[in-house]
Amino acid sequence: MSTPEPSPTPKAIKPRRFELITLGDELLLGLTANSHLTFIGGQLGRRGVQLARNVTITDEAGAIERQFRESWAGADVVITSGGLGPTCDDRTREVIAEVLGQSLVFEPIIEAAIMERFNRFGLKTLPPNNLKQAYRLEGGDFLPNAHGTAPGLWFEEAGKVLCMLPGPPNELQPMFTEQVLPRLAERGFLLSGEAYVQLRTAGIGESELEARLQPVFDAHGGAGEDGPLSVAFCAHAGQVDCRLSSPSGLLTSEQLQAIAAQCEGLLGEDFMCYGEASLAKVCVDLLRAGDKTLAVAEAGTGGLLTSEFGEICGVAKCFLGALVCNSNEAKVTLLDCPECLISQHGAVSAECAVALATGVAERLGADYALSITAFSGAPCANERGNEVGTIFVGLHAPDGVWARKLSYPGPRRTIKTRAVNAALDWLRRELVRANARSAEGACLI
Amino acid sequence: MSTPEPSPTPKAIKPRRFELITLGDELLLGLTANSHLTFIGGQLGRRGVQLARNVTITDEAGAIERQFRESWAGADVVITSGGLGPTCDDRTREVIAEVLGQSLVFEPIIEAAIMERFNRFGLKTLPPNNLKQAYRLEGGDFLPNAHGTAPGLWFEEAGKVLCMLPGPPNELQPMFTEQVLPRLAERGFLLSGEAYVQLRTAGIGESELEARLQPVFDAHGGAGEDGPLSVAFCAHAGQVDCRLSSPSGLLTSEQLQAIAAQCEGLLGEDFMCYGEASLAKVCVDLLRAGDKTLAVAEAGTGGLLTSEFGEICGVAKCFLGALVCNSNEAKVTLLDCPECLISQHGAVSAECAVALATGVAERLGADYALSITAFSGAPCANERGNEVGTIFVGLHAPDGVWARKLSYPGPRRTIKTRAVNAALDWLRRELVRANARSAEGACLI
Repeated sequence: MSTPEPSPTPKAIKPRRFELITLGDELLLGLTANSHLTFIGGQLGRRGVQLARNVTITDEAGAIERQFRESWAGADVVITSGGLGPTCDDRTREVIAEVLGQSLVFEPIIEAAIMERFNRFGLKTLPPNNLKQAYRLEGGDFLPNAHGTAPGLWFEEAGKVLCMLPGPPNELQPMFTEQVLPRLAERGFLLSGEAYVQLRTAGIGESELEARLQPVFDAHGGAGEDGPLSVAFCAHAGQVDCRLSSPSGLLTSEQLQAIAAQCEGLLGEDFMCYGEASLAKVCVDLLRAGDKTLAVAEAGTGGLLTSEFGEICGVAKCFLGALVCNSNEAKVTLLDCPECLISQHGAVSAECAVALATGVAERLGADYALSITAFSGAPCANERGNEVGTIFVGLHAPDGVWARKLSYPGPRRTIKTRAVNAALDWLRRELVRANARSAEGACLI
Repeated sequence: MSTPEPSPTPKAIKPRRFELITLGDELLLGLTANSHLTFIGGQLGRRGVQLARNVTITDEAGAIERQFRESWAGADVVITSGGLGPTCDDRTREVIAEVLGQSLVFEPIIEAAIMERFNRFGLKTLPPNNLKQAYRLEGGDFLPNAHGTAPGLWFEEAGKVLCMLPGPPNELQPMFTEQVLPRLAERGFLLSGEAYVQLRTAGIGESELEARLQPVFDAHGGAGEDGPLSVAFCAHAGQVDCRLSSPSGLLTSEQLQAIAAQCEGLLGEDFMCYGEASLAKVCVDLLRAGDKTLAVAEAGTGGLLTSEFGEICGVAKCFLGALVCNSNEAKVTLLDCPECLISQHGAVSAECAVALATGVAERLGADYALSITAFSGAPCANERGNEVGTIFVGLHAPDGVWARKLSYPGPRRTIKTRAVNAALDWLRRELVRANARSAEGACLI
């Protein structure tokens, strides 16, 4: 695996404080995930800006006023989402105009756009409550909305930017990438290119990872808040991400990529990929690179391993299929797992994991197969002295078949997720070695 | 299906201001969704409290200090998540202790718990950076963590509560429900029971649902902000929830449950369940009630239908297994789907959906089977004049086997989710009728 393509060194930007205010009772009541934070935070992060703060508040006028006043006083850029709709609980435009001492002026272009939208849906007259969406701040601009009635609003004062966006994600997202990002970049508030390098690792803990990479960080002036290099770790179920950036702009993106390549070299097989790919995606890429196929058999994990492959585009060519066997009959009928093997060693055993991996590989004609066997019964189920968290995974490869016992503490869902990741990581390491061997073989020829 | 157990009428609570501070660069950079807001907001909402504000900040010391100082000054309850880990960017404990003028004291019980955890993983010595997790605020308490090394921290002063929780959701969530909610309820900060009744429906749109239920709402003084009854709708991928509450406290929980029962009566088969159960869970309950079994076959949906059953406790007894067939060979070899049927009608066809449902039911000896066939190729794949969003679902029941064509607009992921929900809802309605028929049969005998 090679380092990502070098992108042109982004010009340094003056650090500015960005705040995002997200409005909505449905967010505070946990009924809807705050996708605006994920989206806007991600978009800004890729352009060298980390949101300083995201505040989620109710759509009540007093809450909007207090929060906007505070954020506008301290930040350089304030982005709001929501509260621009036609109903009586949409108050963002009016409240913020008042805080800024701006009057709202009627904008015929917006009215015409709303009218045109209503006509397209076969409506002939504009409901009066939609009319309030045709107003912009006196000293500001508006951002046309191709996917809804509420335009975004834009306002600048004393070097600060305010940007008010509509709440529905399918309206906010294109408006943000197509209109807001270019406007911010024009004013020098964003980098012109990507701003950080992320290494993703598997099978190594956060503290061990930090310790292993420390020599690289030290060689580049340490990974402190004030140094040229900034390092952040993020752990999730058997994977740890390490993100390298240079908020001060002292390191160019080529230098960051060179540092990342040194880290990769130190990590060996524990290095998984650059960026955001999942373990399953990395495995699929390795399978494709080696022109190999995969099958999966699961017992007791209810399709969790299989579903990791579900969202990978065009996966069907190398991922031939999967069997989720909840009953022993299914293992026997569908995968030729010998009945006596199950009765002698148990359904959750190394022997059974091996039989399932081989069975599904042979049935589907796959080069590789992963199997996983776990207790699927009640949380208290306990059989043959194995603890509840015990899981066996099996790996069938062209040169052999093996099983491993895994044991994790924690709730069932966590145990299964970790086991699935451990199984995928085992396959990944096997594929890395196999691809390396065939590359060596190719060199010798 | 019967109404939920009546719980004691929750005592009214004095309104208090709850703020949640979520820490983490990964949230602000959009790398991780803010699941803590969704979880904690939802849990508090069910106990009659709406979060006043959620603030997400970086894990930088200055940001934690500024935000905590501000939130602690204005709120009655401040909950923080994250920054209690062992690495150098975990600073919450230290910074907040300083703001509160509290010293940190070493707690041997926490050290022993961390030690014990490390021993279980086969580690004999405690890494020095884990030691800082063994400290609590001088005047405060700690919340044991059964799923990780960082305990939660609890502190009370002048009627205010501070609760600091670890960042990983699998650690935070059980700590919140098992320790934080009871502590807050004891102090009268939360209702003692659920604050609302939720009806979940399937296969009916939001506006139609509202119109159907309006007579019930009207009979109880309407569903306005000022009336005794408050009604909220929430739609998600083919399901609509209707939540009944009485913020004024004028209706007791028994009265709310009686109103919900009237709604249930009006809805007939469109009523799915009370509360939060998934379609798959409702199907499993109906299968268990009728002592029947289910199998699943998927082609082109990558295990999405199967994974709906994965998290249901003890599902293995009635959900016998599933096959995810990405290749036509898998359909032929494993499910006896005739090759000529695929070549004549196509892999995405009513005929193939029927063959897969029957095949998996017979192979696994299941009473019911659901199948689903969709295009799994590139997003532009198009075959036999079917649009890309076309999906066929098949249902095998003891008294017959049928297929249905579904067609949805939108991105692939949305289409698949809607198709999976439509398939499950079809099975649900079939099971409701079958169970009703056998109940009638039992009455006649």
